[in-house]
Amino acid sequence: MKRPIGVFDSGLGGLTVVRHLRRLLPGEAIVYFGDTARVPYGTKSPEAVVRFSLESCRFLLDRGVGAVVVACNTSSAVALDALRKECPVPVFDVVGPGARRAAEATRSGRIGVIGTRATIMSGVYPREIARRNPAAAVTGVPCPLFVPLAEEGWLDRPATVEIAREYLLPLRTADIDVLILGCTHYPALAGVIRLVMGDGVTLVDSGESCAAFVRERLASLRGGEGGIEYFVSDMPDRFREVGRVFMGEEIGEVAVARAEGGGAPPGRRS
Amino acid sequence: MKRPIGVFDSGLGGLTVVRHLRRLLPGEAIVYFGDTARVPYGTKSPEAVVRFSLESCRFLLDRGVGAVVVACNTSSAVALDALRKECPVPVFDVVGPGARRAAEATRSGRIGVIGTRATIMSGVYPREIARRNPAAAVTGVPCPLFVPLAEEGWLDRPATVEIAREYLLPLRTADIDVLILGCTHYPALAGVIRLVMGDGVTLVDSGESCAAFVRERLASLRGGEGGIEYFVSDMPDRFREVGRVFMGEEIGEVAVARAEGGGAPPGRRS
Repeated sequence: MKRPIGVFDSGLGGLTVVRHLRRLLPGEAIVYFGDTARVPYGTKSPEAVVRFSLESCRFLLDRGVGAVVVACNTSSAVALDALRKECPVPVFDVVGPGARRAAEATRSGRIGVIGTRATIMSGVYPREIARRNPAAAVTGVPCPLFVPLAEEGWLDRPATVEIAREYLLPLRTADIDVLILGCTHYPALAGVIRLVMGDGVTLVDSGESCAAFVRERLASLRGGEGGIEYFVSDMPDRFREVGRVFMGEEIGEVAVARAEGGGAPPGRRS
Repeated sequence: MKRPIGVFDSGLGGLTVVRHLRRLLPGEAIVYFGDTARVPYGTKSPEAVVRFSLESCRFLLDRGVGAVVVACNTSSAVALDALRKECPVPVFDVVGPGARRAAEATRSGRIGVIGTRATIMSGVYPREIARRNPAAAVTGVPCPLFVPLAEEGWLDRPATVEIAREYLLPLRTADIDVLILGCTHYPALAGVIRLVMGDGVTLVDSGESCAAFVRERLASLRGGEGGIEYFVSDMPDRFREVGRVFMGEEIGEVAVARAEGGGAPPGRRS
């Protein structure tokens, strides 16, 4: 029996990954979990993010998924080892594929990464890029206000441009030619980011890179009928309303589920 | 034996209440809990906020407090009944005292309230103001980005001014003469709010009003030596660092504690 792909994120951002998965793997069934009761993750500690991520993963395993996509850069940055250790099915992350794509795309060798404070502090992007392109110079900048701006749907207001100008200044100074959007919320702000950085900089969407990687691994194995089930830990109506922007299409039924607390580690569940 | 006053908030904002409590009641011992693992509350559902608030209250009761101050407008707006029902000690909120102060201070009868989406949607401020001044016209505006701006310490950046101008425009149009800062994070942004609203508008700090009310009720009963114990559910170092701005003084030891989950309702604990 073909099992669905499970996708989780702190909130809405992971929908940008689902959007590409749906385009690249239209035959796959997807179960999405957004931990909207505890969003954001990117301003929280590694310990908290590991705990929240394991709980989200357990929820998806309880729904019978055959693979888990960590559609959150913060979780991928700090919780991937813990997730792979505990999880009995393949776990895909958004950091590795995005780093690989950026390492291949740069001509100047100067790469920028923007993400949450937790992602940038983890140093995971410079490490992953160095594995593929040891000569690359990586400049990382945390952009913590981008998540609330995206969650509020403030995608192209003057204040958003102002904040982007301030955050991205070090990247303009560093004269990068590739910029990794190292948070799955950020593609919603791509217009403003492109405006500030100029056309000479290639934007790498970590979620799109992740979806392409998942297709490479799964395409030969699977086929069937698609469909998406949405679960969130809070505010389903708002998720449906704001999520359209991230998803690029209407979102249907959204159910509320609690991930936290909950019993045995995932290895004992599936 | 004199028991400490317990104060809780979703994160840093409640420190603005502690600051005034400390000034008005220097002899009181205070136990503070900031639910920094789940901050913010104001973008979450009433159900989630009630659950988080009861858990925070239980944590404080377990520390032996003799009164609880709900130093979060969102919790006060949606969880106060549940807290009073479950809690065996007096519960003070920030909404009632702020509404009373505003109802007394207005000359024109046109009052503005800013707060989180949850607080404004609850309608609690118009209801509480109407009890004291039925003729008052109340204009409420949600300002959801103010909490992340304050938590990031972006207190007077150009983007903050830009966002304030956009949020506060309906209040300028409504020609109010009193504005309630209906979120304990907002006093940190008072400079920008005053800049946008002009000197003709009196700002009411809901936390200061709350502290004054607590003093009225407790002053005759108590005396002794002060002191503050700080607990947060995540990120103690950042709490200490950014919290200085809210507290107006250095913050000492901050311990990490988990409120969620945890056992019996508070009535069975204390």
